[in-house]
Amino acid sequence: MSPTSQPDYSHTLNQIHAEVQPMLGQGQVASYIPELAKVPPRQFGMAVVTLDGQVHQCGDAQQPFSIQSISKLFALTLAYQCLGDALWTRVGREPSGTAFNSLVQLESEQGRPRNPFINAGALVVTDVLCSRFVNPETALVEFVRRLSGNPQIQYDMAVAQSELGTAHRNRAMAHFMANFGNLRNPVEEVIAAYCRHCAIRMTAVDLARAVAFLAHGGVNPWSGERIVDASSAKRLSALMLTCGTYDAAGDFAYRVGLPAKSGVGGGIVAHMPGHFGACVWSPELEASGNSLAGSHALERFTTLTGQSLF
Amino acid sequence: MSPTSQPDYSHTLNQIHAEVQPMLGQGQVASYIPELAKVPPRQFGMAVVTLDGQVHQCGDAQQPFSIQSISKLFALTLAYQCLGDALWTRVGREPSGTAFNSLVQLESEQGRPRNPFINAGALVVTDVLCSRFVNPETALVEFVRRLSGNPQIQYDMAVAQSELGTAHRNRAMAHFMANFGNLRNPVEEVIAAYCRHCAIRMTAVDLARAVAFLAHGGVNPWSGERIVDASSAKRLSALMLTCGTYDAAGDFAYRVGLPAKSGVGGGIVAHMPGHFGACVWSPELEASGNSLAGSHALERFTTLTGQSLF
Amino acid sequence: MSPTSQPDYSHTLNQIHAEVQPMLGQGQVASYIPELAKVPPRQFGMAVVTLDGQVHQCGDAQQPFSIQSISKLFALTLAYQCLGDALWTRVGREPSGTAFNSLVQLESEQGRPRNPFINAGALVVTDVLCSRFVNPETALVEFVRRLSGNPQIQYDMAVAQSELGTAHRNRAMAHFMANFGNLRNPVEEVIAAYCRHCAIRMTAVDLARAVAFLAHGGVNPWSGERIVDASSAKRLSALMLTCGTYDAAGDFAYRVGLPAKSGVGGGIVAHMPGHFGACVWSPELEASGNSLAGSHALERFTTLTGQSLF
Amino acid sequence: MSPTSQPDYSHTLNQIHAEVQPMLGQGQVASYIPELAKVPPRQFGMAVVTLDGQVHQCGDAQQPFSIQSISKLFALTLAYQCLGDALWTRVGREPSGTAFNSLVQLESEQGRPRNPFINAGALVVTDVLCSRFVNPETALVEFVRRLSGNPQIQYDMAVAQSELGTAHRNRAMAHFMANFGNLRNPVEEVIAAYCRHCAIRMTAVDLARAVAFLAHGGVNPWSGERIVDASSAKRLSALMLTCGTYDAAGDFAYRVGLPAKSGVGGGIVAHMPGHFGACVWSPELEASGNSLAGSHALERFTTLTGQSLF
Repeated sequence: MSPTSQPDYSHTLNQIHAEVQPMLGQGQVASYIPELAKVPPRQFGMAVVTLDGQVHQCGDAQQPFSIQSISKLFALTLAYQCLGDALWTRVGREPSGTAFNSLVQLESEQGRPRNPFINAGALVVTDVLCSRFVNPETALVEFVRRLSGNPQIQYDMAVAQSELGTAHRNRAMAHFMANFGNLRNPVEEVIAAYCRHCAIRMTAVDLARAVAFLAHGGVNPWSGERIVDASSAKRLSALMLTCGTYDAAGDFAYRVGLPAKSGVGGGIVAHMPGHFGACVWSPELEASGNSLAGSHALERFTTLTGQSLF
Repeated sequence: MSPTSQPDYSHTLNQIHAEVQPMLGQGQVASYIPELAKVPPRQFGMAVVTLDGQVHQCGDAQQPFSIQSISKLFALTLAYQCLGDALWTRVGREPSGTAFNSLVQLESEQGRPRNPFINAGALVVTDVLCSRFVNPETALVEFVRRLSGNPQIQYDMAVAQSELGTAHRNRAMAHFMANFGNLRNPVEEVIAAYCRHCAIRMTAVDLARAVAFLAHGGVNPWSGERIVDASSAKRLSALMLTCGTYDAAGDFAYRVGLPAKSGVGGGIVAHMPGHFGACVWSPELEASGNSLAGSHALERFTTLTGQSLF
Repeated sequence: MSPTSQPDYSHTLNQIHAEVQPMLGQGQVASYIPELAKVPPRQFGMAVVTLDGQVHQCGDAQQPFSIQSISKLFALTLAYQCLGDALWTRVGREPSGTAFNSLVQLESEQGRPRNPFINAGALVVTDVLCSRFVNPETALVEFVRRLSGNPQIQYDMAVAQSELGTAHRNRAMAHFMANFGNLRNPVEEVIAAYCRHCAIRMTAVDLARAVAFLAHGGVNPWSGERIVDASSAKRLSALMLTCGTYDAAGDFAYRVGLPAKSGVGGGIVAHMPGHFGACVWSPELEASGNSLAGSHALERFTTLTGQSLF
Repeated sequence: MSPTSQPDYSHTLNQIHAEVQPMLGQGQVASYIPELAKVPPRQFGMAVVTLDGQVHQCGDAQQPFSIQSISKLFALTLAYQCLGDALWTRVGREPSGTAFNSLVQLESEQGRPRNPFINAGALVVTDVLCSRFVNPETALVEFVRRLSGNPQIQYDMAVAQSELGTAHRNRAMAHFMANFGNLRNPVEEVIAAYCRHCAIRMTAVDLARAVAFLAHGGVNPWSGERIVDASSAKRLSALMLTCGTYDAAGDFAYRVGLPAKSGVGGGIVAHMPGHFGACVWSPELEASGNSLAGSHALERFTTLTGQSLF
């Protein structure tokens, strides 16, 4: 595609930025931990980074926020680098059909979580990282620094502590999986690493850049580093589409049509293979746990640009 | 794309045809109704039809077979033509996370099926068709004739009767939904139409042609007829990806990466937006209910040609 | 026990009659079928029949009402006469832990209902009667006439028709069990018999007399007819205690401590082995589906008389 | 009843002892913790203590064993002494319909266990004891010493440690309930007390004596101490009948007809109101987790003596 035919993503982002204004104030900021509840509502930012490095952005796209469950995508990639397809003996690849923090399926399926994007699955992924790295939280922070090219990324200790204090349900899952032999490291160690992963702070621009390797056949477009092979990049993208947005993944695929992963901090990363990495952030959530304005913005983006998988 | 750059799909199909030979004999032909159990195993055919009308095929691609649940895709399209997004008040768009014939979720979700590709959802879709057409089975047969351009397509009365005799589970679902007010026509009428839809006989070539409108922005490439608008074609395709292959949809998206719909007759339709409609058929199934050799063939096809969504 | 030491049940019943007055008007008459919804609220009657034939009663104890699920006890007894312990291959003896009309357990337990007092179990019992009797509804009516000594007992055709018209959920269960091979007769035949069983009309006095055989070692105290052997009478009584009052059986045993079976018509039969048969009726129900004033009356009765199992 | 008419329980016990011999070797000793797996199989003992203090026994009735879940009955009694009916705001009184260690119902019922005899319910009960006693394990040991009149009773530290090491599932439940606010003390503290309760060692004679207060209107027959009021004794007995023998409570009530509580150590306590306390022990279990020979022995006992509730 010649530079002149490059879609005018900046103009589209500005249009969307204007359109979503009336939605701000209509969702709920996540309140299950005190630190997240403090985030001011009515913020919105979006970034689209094309594979040639152009950054398109609007609003609060340079405001750092807590990536929360978006970390599950990076943790999965790192664990998949370690184990390859052997990872799938411990976690499935199917949509769960139930809430992201449900224990019901773990019971009927012998402690093997449905996919790596529900909490139970991410705990298994974290357990893999705990077995491979002395400091699994440092390993993940370093990994997202490399992916995004931003060496300043850190996790927020106050958020991590806040999560740790209310992680009873995640501890329940971890012990339950330990009961089935599907957790190898001490529960508290896995929980501590998991809470720190969730507490990483990044901007929409950081995240749009960090996810771009999936749109680029598994190669980091900024450094040239191969992260995963091309086939694996496709497969991780398929997982994002079927399982990446809590139990609204079917609806999200229907409306947006891009591989995506969301977090309760209000961020959603997405990408279009061969074209761009993207991230939208707006901290107010809809009932499904996905960003209200963020979901709408991505739906508008694919409609306005015609850029979707289907 | 110029004619000379057209991928040599025929060569790829022949290669796949050779590769799958050792898999024939390793699956199980569907046996839940006597008529299906009579189908000779060890058959395999595949067809890929590009949007310019070229037909690539191998093996038993011109052998008619019982389309079974593939009919759910055409019934959904027809019902969606009737109701548009109002259809989604009666059936969801999420993967079910449970078996295609489970009643559990119907109970906890008040008689609203998760998606139109599980049996309960297809019964609601059929109920919509029963309300709109005097002869819903004739309407669907005529619809697939138009989509594929083959006026000879019929349903197989013996298969339909055989299904009707063993449809207790579908009747249970239908009565259960009626109990929640989500079935408007008499149960036996809906069941009769549903069984006839499943009993339609088509070849892999017919089906590859019939599905092509979804790859062509909602317009039938053979007749120019608009079936659904471009946005709806994308959305139906997204549904196929997340829900089209029973409870193995996540795995199928991971391995194949194309929107697809399978049936227990051993057929699987798929398409690549902007490129082709496809159908593979091999009557022996794997445990998930999808064609064993068929799933493998589609996985090989996207790997060999690089043609997948992601 | 000498006549002079016979507890003064009549006095106790009068006391309870007075005590429950403030509760009348606080429950809900069953409204799922129009015919039942017509029953005037604020009625209450209770009868206790000692094994020597003395009838103690108060209030509306001679007012006929729709016995509804109390029929499940008599149908079970009749089916058990036919099959003995072979009946338990088709239906279990465990509390269900879920609602009386749930299909969930049927799915995970292959169409075998948990016990004969939930709807699914009663449909299997009715299926047994359909296999043994040309007119299963006549057979049951005749059986309760013999048990109670009242040849006037009939079923109410208007109630039976009303139930038949809204029996979608029971039809769903019946087809579901047929799917698993646990229903032998045509679904509509079983449903018709079941609805007529539920529509039998009896008074509290009739029912107190009809249940007395269980308190009398399996022998009808009025006719001397052996209904079941002594051991079976104990076992049917145990089933009543653990499963007889919907999913409040644990609470009911805790509060009342007598074997009992309730119906949504507002009746509850109970008995004390070696002492009496009893029935209370008040059409307003609590959330569990048991009679509000009736449950309270039985609790007061066992407290005041000291007559309970434990 | 005059002394001369006292049933000859000793003779009955000897008969049963002979009858069960062929069953020894046909069940499985609990193996989920190493310490329990070491118990020699093929042991059997039974004790019946009448309220006048006569002890009837056979076989290994004086062999101490790990009481395991039988401790739930004593812990419940102690917690009920503390809280009375307020206890039922935190735990229900209904049969669970699912396995004793299931987390499914906790999820749908917001962390409130179905009854105090499943593990989750017993953890809540233990949490109550942790709030009331500095040393809840000492408190329970002292309580059973008083109930049985045997000051030598201890818990087995090796068993308690062994349980603690494999208590992942119980920890999962405890964290899950903490997540719903239904656990007040630190999870590890509750788990430690719970494991020690399970590890109490008593003989069948000790246990038959310890349970006798329930048969005696809530008063310890050996010391005259009132443990609970008469009404509460009846109610706790009702709970034993409906919930005391894992998910086989319905079957157990049907076959045996006595209030009972079993443990995976192979013990089962039971009692007959007004007559006796009883305990049988045989370490080999049937699939339900109840002692194989023990269940059979109690069934034979009620059949041979005619002593059952019904």
